[in-house]
Formats: sequence, C-alpha cells, structure tokens
Amino acid sequence: MSKFATAGLIALALAVSACGKAGSDGQSATGPASEELMKAAREQFKALPASYKEVEGFSASQDLIDLGAMLYHDPRLSGSHALSCASCHNIGLGGGDNASTSIGHNWQQGGRNAPTVLNATFNFAQFWDGRAKDLVEQAGGPMVNPIEMDSPKEHIVEQIKSIPGYAAAFAKAFPGQKDPITLENIQKSIAAFEATLITPNAPFDQYLNGKPGALDQTQKAGLKLFVDTGCASCHNGMNVGGSMYAKFGMASDPDPKYRPPGDKGRMAVTNQASDLYSYKVPTLRNVALTAPYFHNGSVWDLREAVKVMAKAQLGKDLSDGDADKIVAFLGSLTGDQPDVRVPILPASGPNTTRPMRN
Amino acid sequence: MSKFATAGLIALALAVSACGKAGSDGQSATGPASEELMKAAREQFKALPASYKEVEGFSASQDLIDLGAMLYHDPRLSGSHALSCASCHNIGLGGGDNASTSIGHNWQQGGRNAPTVLNATFNFAQFWDGRAKDLVEQAGGPMVNPIEMDSPKEHIVEQIKSIPGYAAAFAKAFPGQKDPITLENIQKSIAAFEATLITPNAPFDQYLNGKPGALDQTQKAGLKLFVDTGCASCHNGMNVGGSMYAKFGMASDPDPKYRPPGDKGRMAVTNQASDLYSYKVPTLRNVALTAPYFHNGSVWDLREAVKVMAKAQLGKDLSDGDADKIVAFLGSLTGDQPDVRVPILPASGPNTTRPMRN
Repeated sequence: MSKFATAGLIALALAVSACGKAGSDGQSATGPASEELMKAAREQFKALPASYKEVEGFSASQDLIDLGAMLYHDPRLSGSHALSCASCHNIGLGGGDNASTSIGHNWQQGGRNAPTVLNATFNFAQFWDGRAKDLVEQAGGPMVNPIEMDSPKEHIVEQIKSIPGYAAAFAKAFPGQKDPITLENIQKSIAAFEATLITPNAPFDQYLNGKPGALDQTQKAGLKLFVDTGCASCHNGMNVGGSMYAKFGMASDPDPKYRPPGDKGRMAVTNQASDLYSYKVPTLRNVALTAPYFHNGSVWDLREAVKVMAKAQLGKDLSDGDADKIVAFLGSLTGDQPDVRVPILPASGPNTTRPMRN
Repeated sequence: MSKFATAGLIALALAVSACGKAGSDGQSATGPASEELMKAAREQFKALPASYKEVEGFSASQDLIDLGAMLYHDPRLSGSHALSCASCHNIGLGGGDNASTSIGHNWQQGGRNAPTVLNATFNFAQFWDGRAKDLVEQAGGPMVNPIEMDSPKEHIVEQIKSIPGYAAAFAKAFPGQKDPITLENIQKSIAAFEATLITPNAPFDQYLNGKPGALDQTQKAGLKLFVDTGCASCHNGMNVGGSMYAKFGMASDPDPKYRPPGDKGRMAVTNQASDLYSYKVPTLRNVALTAPYFHNGSVWDLREAVKVMAKAQLGKDLSDGDADKIVAFLGSLTGDQPDVRVPILPASGPNTTRPMRN
C-alpha cells in the first residue's frame, strides 16, 4: 500500500471514530439500515479480487508480464523515442496523465482524455468509443496513431527485433514459438502487464467484503444517494462502470462545453445514428485520482462532474451537499495502487532506428 | 541484477571459459602480466561501492529518498505536466534517453545530449559545461529552462504546495522544519534520490576487487590499450571520467559534425577563451547503454566515438581492431542497474495548476 493510501486509511479511521456510534443520519453504523445498505450494495457492485493472480481467467506467466512491463515503458515504440504507453497512462498518476487531452508526437493533442489503465482489464471494451474489444486490440492503437506515438505499423516488429536484448525476453515469454517477435505478441505482452494493474482493497471493497466500518457515515450516505439517484444503473459491477455504453445526454443535452458537437462518440465507430454522443461508461475506481473528467477531460472538479452527470443522464438536480456525499463515496473507490518496478530496458542495437523528431 | 545484466554475465562467463587458460595475446589469465595489468588498473580506477548506502558522505533518510523519487517522476514540475526528470533521464535506458538531444516543452530541442543520471553523484560538477556544482544545484535547472520543463521558477513551490499529499512527505523528509516545501528542499530531495542511482558490481568492478576472470582476454587487452593509449589520463577514477574538464580537440580539431562551432562549451560559463570547446569529461560507466555519444550526441557507434576521441584528444589513429578491444573493455563498465519502484504520486488539489499546453 502506498503511503498516500495509508494516510487516507488513517484519516478514514479517524473519521469513522469521530462519528462514534451514531452517524449524521442518526443510524447506527452497524444497525439494520446499515445492513440493508450493504446488502443493496452487494447487489449492484462486486469487490475486486485481492490480487491480479486471482482474477478469473488470468493465466499470464511472470515472463510475459515482465516483457509487457518493458514494452509498456519503452519509448522506442514511438517514432520520436520520447513517448511510451506510460507517458499518458502513468501508473503513478492513477493510470492516466491528469490532463484533459494528452500530448502526442510533435506536441499534437487528440480530442479525448486518456482513460486510466488501472483495472482496465475489467472493462467490457476499450477506448471511450469501444473501438477495441480488449486490451490486446487496444495496445495496437496508440503506437501507430500519428497524433500519439506515431510509429509506422510495419516498423514496430522490425524495431523490437533490432534491440538485441528483446530476443531472449520474447523467447521466455512465448516458449516454443519459432519467431515470437510479432506485432500480436507485442500487443499480448503489453495487455498481460496491463491486466496486472488492478487496485484492490479500496475501502469500498472492504465494505463489500463485510466490513461496515470501512466507509464512514458520509460515504455511506453517498453510496445510498449513488444508488437511489440512479448513478448505479450505469456505474455498477466490479468496475463501477466499464460494462456498457450510454449516450452523454440521456435525460437532457449537456452544455456544449461538456459535449462539443464535433465528437460524435460511438457513432463514428458504428455509423448508427442511435450511437450519437454515446460513450463507454467509464470505471469510477480511483476516480479521485484521475481528474479531469468526461471523455474530453472538460471538468476538473469531481463535484461538478457528479452534478453534470445527474442532470444530463438522470434529469436530476443534485444539491451541493448531496453531490459532496457522492464525492465522499467515490473517494472510497481508491484502492492499493500497483507496485511496479521501473523496468530496465535492453540497449539498442546497430540497426535500431534513431529517433524521428518531426 | 537485471535479466540483461545476468544474460551479459552468463555470456561473459562463457567467453572467459572459451578463452581457456591462454588468451589471444598468449598471456595467462592469472599470470604475471595479468597481475601487472590489475595493479595498473587499480592505480587509475576505483571500484564503485556495493550499494549507495556505502558511498562516502551519503546520509539521506529513506523518507528523503522516497520523496525525491516522487518529485523525480512527477510531471507536474513541468509547465505542460507532460515532462518529468525521468523523461530525459530514464532509469530504464541507462539513465539517459538514447537521443542526440532531448525533447522539451512544445517539442523544442536543446543542443546538448542528456547526460546519464546513473553515478552522476560521483561527478565533480554537473551539466556538460559544469555550470552546476552538484546534483542539488543541477536539479534546479531543467525545471525552469524554457526549452526543457518550462516551469516558471516562482511557480514550483506553489505547485508542490497545491498537491495535498506532498505536505506529509516533506514533513517526514525534513523533520523539524516549519515550512519544509521550499525550492531548495525540492532540489535536495531530487538530488538525494539521484544519489542512490549507482550501478555497482560491473565486471570491471569485480576485476578491480580482485577477480581476474571478471574480464575476458579481449576486455583485458582493451583495458591495457585504454591505459596505454592515454584514454585513462582523463577517464579515470571511480567514475572513469567525471573528474575534470577537457577541450574537445586537445590534439587536433575534430570534424565540425562532432564539434559544431556554435557550442562554445565551458567558455559560455567562464568567459575564458581557454575554455573554448571545453566540456566535462563524461563518466564512461554504462557507456554501452547510453548511445549516442559526445556532448551533442553526434555519434551513435561506440567504436566511432573511441576513434574520434583518440584522434582529437590524443593524436592517435586507432585501428578498428584496437578500437574494438577498447569497446569490449567499455562493455565491462555496465553494472547492476538501479531497482526503483514507480512512485505513486499524490493527487492534485483544487489549486493545482492545469497543464500549460503551448
């Protein structure tokens, strides 16, 4: 656990202790109303596994994960050799980059916010518009996107082959394969590493696992509001989101500053008019760490984001006080952050391309 | 030890074994000539301590080091929030960025190669022109350089203060100080972390510590040439460099592609004509990992760099074969790379500035 998570838990413990036996709503922390809330929560949400090793279906070897960690951090997968996956999906910054939109090749910027890589393995599709079905497919995107890492597609395999130290790492990660350095295996390795980046043991997970004191009274009130207001109708399951698409503006059109008309959302993928302004419902895990919010990073304040969402998606005007309670609950979704070593990358060889600078 | 270092040592062990008792020069690996070489080497060079904790004068607390690791990796010390110390001094890439010159704010590029941060603590001065006396002073430079991280100087302290989680980290790192978040303490923290980034246990260190088999016969021949040719008159001591300035072109002017006339070297710092084209002699530790070479990164091939140096600094024309032996010796300067965790950074607060994008 990071020192910040620890500090958070200590602060939380003090807060729970300060609340004493009766919370602000007059309910006992362990009384019948509390038990009902926990039961309701368990119907909507699911705790994260305690470790990626316990994730259903996870079977990557340590060699594959280690290789993926190297590739994820290797800037030689970008044309400039200055950008890696980690540039925009910084494990130390909640898995994103805390910017509305990211800086790519030649300081270009796209139109969408970098989604967190943390717990991304639990999303039903990848990218804001779901254009990649899983992490393997996603990993192939930014490397070759001319405004992101800007590597020519045909160049990537050649580039990795030119770095002598990768040969042994691929041989170990893909035993028995004659020619394991392929684009598919590069993507598989990165995805395998990313699948280890889960954040278990959040206060909310502890709560779901039967520890009523893991949430303070304000957070419990926020959880109740989150469910009763209807937020949980989209933000639910293990990832508190990441399991469906929804039109941004289901109940009413948001201000164009939140939903600029130029970005058509999933309609650009499907060509279906019904997908206009439709986006993947993002995970809310670690949301306190991942400002700014929305598909374009247009909102920096989590309370504002909650209120805009309640209005646009559910047609409800939340008071500041209620929004604050929901924000307090969302703070309980911050889990133990990944413990990753800075990978030591193999040296370039004589045929490794030189950085492309414009 | 990284897997690549391990692989290297295994390869080395095989090479030593293949050489058998007699090397290509007909000398016994443990005979009198060999003992003489080790003795000569010990007069010129010194092994790195086995750990940063054993470095003379090192006294930083773990709290200070941990804080420094965070700041070193925190892109919010740059105006764009897209660049950190680690962007150009990548611990996974030999402590540099494997580019002739680095990319800074708004994709600008300076004129000098990013020197490795590894073992930089042993250099007698910092930057290619020695304009910072130590790592603490150096750490203040790139943050405020408009073509590097481009943070306004007066903004840095305010920025770190705006990130709530840093308060506790500074309090622990600087116990007893009433207002520990200062520019000086930010620089001290980064320098303390950087001072841990040493690379002990290179084959050459093992050799200096009395293990004749740690170098193979080619490397020993290269070491002998390195000393006899005169390379060690500048590249010596614990850092195999980093202890003096030297004019690039002591014996004869190098081609302008290696020494473009626009960069006056240390003369720009001292205004002394005698410092024209004078630079700090760089450390050669881990040099096999840190291409491209020279103050402007003009040479990608280590053999070419060795030959250019021999001619320009010592007036000697090295054969390809002799240069290759020196390159083999230089390969023995690659040590155990640092084992650093990706630090989890505290979340921004409401007053943290937003990224500046142009």
